[in-house]
Amino acid sequence: MGFSLDPRLESSSAFVIDWPQAQLRLKDDRRFPWLLLIPRQPGTVEFHDLAPPDYHKLCDELLAATAVMREVAAPEKLNVGMLGNIVAQMHIHIIGRFARDDAWPGNVWGAGEGPPYPAEQLSELVGLYCRAAERLRPGPG
Amino acid sequence: MGFSLDPRLESSSAFVIDWPQAQLRLKDDRRFPWLLLIPRQPGTVEFHDLAPPDYHKLCDELLAATAVMREVAAPEKLNVGMLGNIVAQMHIHIIGRFARDDAWPGNVWGAGEGPPYPAEQLSELVGLYCRAAERLRPGPG
Repeated sequence: MGFSLDPRLESSSAFVIDWPQAQLRLKDDRRFPWLLLIPRQPGTVEFHDLAPPDYHKLCDELLAATAVMREVAAPEKLNVGMLGNIVAQMHIHIIGRFARDDAWPGNVWGAGEGPPYPAEQLSELVGLYCRAAERLRPGPG
Repeated sequence: MGFSLDPRLESSSAFVIDWPQAQLRLKDDRRFPWLLLIPRQPGTVEFHDLAPPDYHKLCDELLAATAVMREVAAPEKLNVGMLGNIVAQMHIHIIGRFARDDAWPGNVWGAGEGPPYPAEQLSELVGLYCRAAERLRPGPG
């Protein structure tokens, strides 16, 4: 069985890059710089669903995703979360936060849905994140 | 400089165990089974503040903390988060969620402060988590 993305994740985010373990996507919410890291192994819901080597690779990719976020958005604080109460397919949120943002100091998940980016800005941002993700891709093992 | 715990983390949680990289604590909120994993290295705010070997150890301890939570509380879903918008000292939340809990399917961070456990129940729970954490402690490296 191949990788298939939950339609709610797909419709609310844009593809950035496929890393060895997970797909990196940009959440289409212009309030916050917000990446999603989605393991491509079918049926992944919790960390323990992954074999230990795959979990370690995912942790390396999570660290790389935070480096990508820092390079592109230079946030004041990183927020990372793995919830899955509504969409079970594992997706790790990496959000860049600023003391001036719409939800500070609260969390973004309780802040409702934000407006999407204008199409041109979304493409431009995907390009920026993709180039950073190419350069900062996690090393082997 | 030794490890010192932010007083807001200390007063809202109880000590469970010291693992090699981080201290495991039980949040004193009887609405949710809720562990905190706090790296003991002074000045840790973001993942990239840790040297790569320490980050990897922390990831192993995070996986072990989820195993402890599963064994003691048998939650229907795990929620994991690293925010730090209010208390900067890094603390990773590991929360056991149930479809019948007070905040489902929302997140726990937006759900205010909950009532503490009765003292006797808190001691009993700390004992349960501590014994599980002794047995499921992360392996070396």
